[in-house]
Amino acid sequence: MSDPLPQGAIIGILGGGQLGRMLSIAAARLGFRTHIFEPGTNPPAGHVADIVTTAPYEDDAALRAFGNAVDVITYEFENVPTSALDLLGTLAPIHPGREALRISQDRLTEKDFLSGLGLHVAPYAAVDDAQSMAAAIEKVGTPAILKTRRFGYDGKGQARLKSPSDADQALADMAGAPAVLEGFINFSAEISIIAARSPSGEVACYDPGENVHEGGILRKTTVPASVKSALRMDGVILAGRILNELDYVGVMGVELFVTPKGLIVNEIAPRVHNSGHWTQNGCTVDQFEQHIRAIAGWPLGNGQRHSDVVMENLIGDDMNRVPALAAQAETALHLYGKADVKAGRKMGHVNFVTSSAKS
Amino acid sequence: MSDPLPQGAIIGILGGGQLGRMLSIAAARLGFRTHIFEPGTNPPAGHVADIVTTAPYEDDAALRAFGNAVDVITYEFENVPTSALDLLGTLAPIHPGREALRISQDRLTEKDFLSGLGLHVAPYAAVDDAQSMAAAIEKVGTPAILKTRRFGYDGKGQARLKSPSDADQALADMAGAPAVLEGFINFSAEISIIAARSPSGEVACYDPGENVHEGGILRKTTVPASVKSALRMDGVILAGRILNELDYVGVMGVELFVTPKGLIVNEIAPRVHNSGHWTQNGCTVDQFEQHIRAIAGWPLGNGQRHSDVVMENLIGDDMNRVPALAAQAETALHLYGKADVKAGRKMGHVNFVTSSAKS
Repeated sequence: MSDPLPQGAIIGILGGGQLGRMLSIAAARLGFRTHIFEPGTNPPAGHVADIVTTAPYEDDAALRAFGNAVDVITYEFENVPTSALDLLGTLAPIHPGREALRISQDRLTEKDFLSGLGLHVAPYAAVDDAQSMAAAIEKVGTPAILKTRRFGYDGKGQARLKSPSDADQALADMAGAPAVLEGFINFSAEISIIAARSPSGEVACYDPGENVHEGGILRKTTVPASVKSALRMDGVILAGRILNELDYVGVMGVELFVTPKGLIVNEIAPRVHNSGHWTQNGCTVDQFEQHIRAIAGWPLGNGQRHSDVVMENLIGDDMNRVPALAAQAETALHLYGKADVKAGRKMGHVNFVTSSAKS
Repeated sequence: MSDPLPQGAIIGILGGGQLGRMLSIAAARLGFRTHIFEPGTNPPAGHVADIVTTAPYEDDAALRAFGNAVDVITYEFENVPTSALDLLGTLAPIHPGREALRISQDRLTEKDFLSGLGLHVAPYAAVDDAQSMAAAIEKVGTPAILKTRRFGYDGKGQARLKSPSDADQALADMAGAPAVLEGFINFSAEISIIAARSPSGEVACYDPGENVHEGGILRKTTVPASVKSALRMDGVILAGRILNELDYVGVMGVELFVTPKGLIVNEIAPRVHNSGHWTQNGCTVDQFEQHIRAIAGWPLGNGQRHSDVVMENLIGDDMNRVPALAAQAETALHLYGKADVKAGRKMGHVNFVTSSAKS
């Protein structure tokens, strides 16, 4: 285990969106500087970072300069191209590590990994062509959902099958990309666990949040979740198993379905997670600082909940609500400084601090 | 009253120290960008600002470029040269306004202003030479403290008089600068009120903090303060009067002595204040965001205390305590990313979140 990062060390972050932005702020709070690597111009994270590199992930010279300029590398999204990671990995430590990325970059690999750990996942089967599609429907049944194995997010790269007759259209929607057919789960709630693990193996989980999605995008997270405490404990233990198995360093988001038979793992994200934004106003140390602490080799911080929170994403025209929200007593606004409002674009979020948690 | 600042607007901040740094972070949280103007290189605020201008306050061309590039101007210290303010004031609104700066830049003017409002201050008298010194000692008595009228901070520019025989030495310490002799106050505690006022006249005060100084530098602030609630209310009312009288916009720190005869105003600072750092972990909206909200013409946020906090400054070698502090459950660290540790230099602070406040 390496020494804790000293004051003034530079943390490299791949991706300059809102997660990189909030990671930068947390890093600054602990006396670190940040260097953002992002292909797009004027990234939200750049407003609060010390250095910004604007270059594509295929630019080896830019990657090399970035890797040489930073003390540790992390990322705000799991779809970092493998070739970039190969190069960067020779220049600086990357946390969370390659194994977590490899697994979470591919839905099939992820489900095999989770099943292999003895955790429950939805029925699933690989789909590469019409033949495997037929076999998958046979195994999984319908209704079901076909998802690309790689590069899906916020409901993109998905097609629903109400019945087997939708198979051809769904397959066409994948445009030849390898896919996974997932059976529908009859769940009463969706919750997520934001878990952190330090290089020394210390694990800390935040209270589970209860999520509501709309159109494949997270709309709202409520903490505490309306699930029994035994189930919350199951979720925490399960998340700890995943992190330990991967020798994980950093924060992970684990999405779970609550069913009559217990918890089913929907997916894992090897990064800070939208459903953990409530921690900014519910805990002394939020998920962003927890991630920075972990990748910097610091002890994990206090993630105990001091307040109940409802987090709501501000998507597209929701930004018109900002003046009214700013005038409400219980609101904490977190806006991303994005230049243009676009439909479906996450522009910010608001934490409604509904009460002090019972201590 | 002007319209609220829109998303993406640029807030200019004079001064790039830790207060500018934490103002930058708060501004980003609300979707604003910041532009730091600071004579020194590699300022702490620069790590989290969008743009940094490195130039002296006498560089009119740099000031003009800065003033033209920003939508509103604020500052992290009250000793901004008047000539710079004169120029900048023609280019962008400056909050808090010139009158608050004029008063707080001069201890004599400040005491005259506070007395004129009917508030209690320590006995004081102007000292310019040996003759006025003798008259001042006659009026104020000894022990007393001689302070330069301008540019004093953290105990600098001060000399103590135990008896009238110290007069010559104290006067020599001022090196010819106009000064004020202040009588000693027999106080049981020192508290401060962090108060905010918006352009619409809305005033919000945080709970008073109780301060302990060492060597003229703030060491610790404890909230809640160990003073009776009636006295807390007196402090809040008094702060509100000051802000209203000045038609003030932004956050002000008001330092008060608690005496058997009631509250005596020690000094006011027209900016976010070290004794308000506890708000970062005690309130949903901290003093930095409150200041940004006010100068941006937004409604003030929720400054209600959700947790009890003890804030302790990390000065010089206190940085050696950081690893141990990071491992303590109740600590929230805020480090300033300063390159060199120097004796007496504020390097960071720690908020000990001691319990959830009773709601």
